[in-house]
Amino acid sequence: MYVIIVYDINVDRVNKVKSFLRTHMHWIQNSVFEGEVTKSEFEEIKSGLRSIINKKEDSVIIYSMRSEKAFKRGVMGVEKAPINGIL
Amino acid sequence: MYVIIVYDINVDRVNKVKSFLRTHMHWIQNSVFEGEVTKSEFEEIKSGLRSIINKKEDSVIIYSMRSEKAFKRGVMGVEKAPINGIL
Repeated sequence: MYVIIVYDINVDRVNKVKSFLRTHMHWIQNSVFEGEVTKSEFEEIKSGLRSIINKKEDSVIIYSMRSEKAFKRGVMGVEKAPINGIL
Repeated sequence: MYVIIVYDINVDRVNKVKSFLRTHMHWIQNSVFEGEVTKSEFEEIKSGLRSIINKKEDSVIIYSMRSEKAFKRGVMGVEKAPINGIL
């Protein structure tokens, strides 16, 4: 499955979230990660995030889809971690 | 079509981007908007963003897909602008 994760995390925890997500996915933009993951890896990612974030202060949105083919990605301006697509 | 926009914009321009996107889409998280838009509205959004951002400093990622059914959305922690889905 393909997963896009977008987060808004307190500065005290944001680096921990970044380091954790880097072990599973690709860093795309300041607070965006993407990647093809297995179902069990997906569960691991969710439980890892749950253990790091503060539910009352932080916010994580997880978009999951069958494959990367489910969407088109376009980038405008600075491309921090290029994968593909220019608008 | 359904569109998810994630941005990382310099503080000097971020409110302008937010106000502009609010006229077309739903605010989901600090720097995330989503919405069902027509193809012409999509073009309008892209050209509007192009005119606001600084291509050398700002970054906008646009995910577009056929419909909202193409993905599942889950939210962990604070849900700033609830649509659906709890993980």
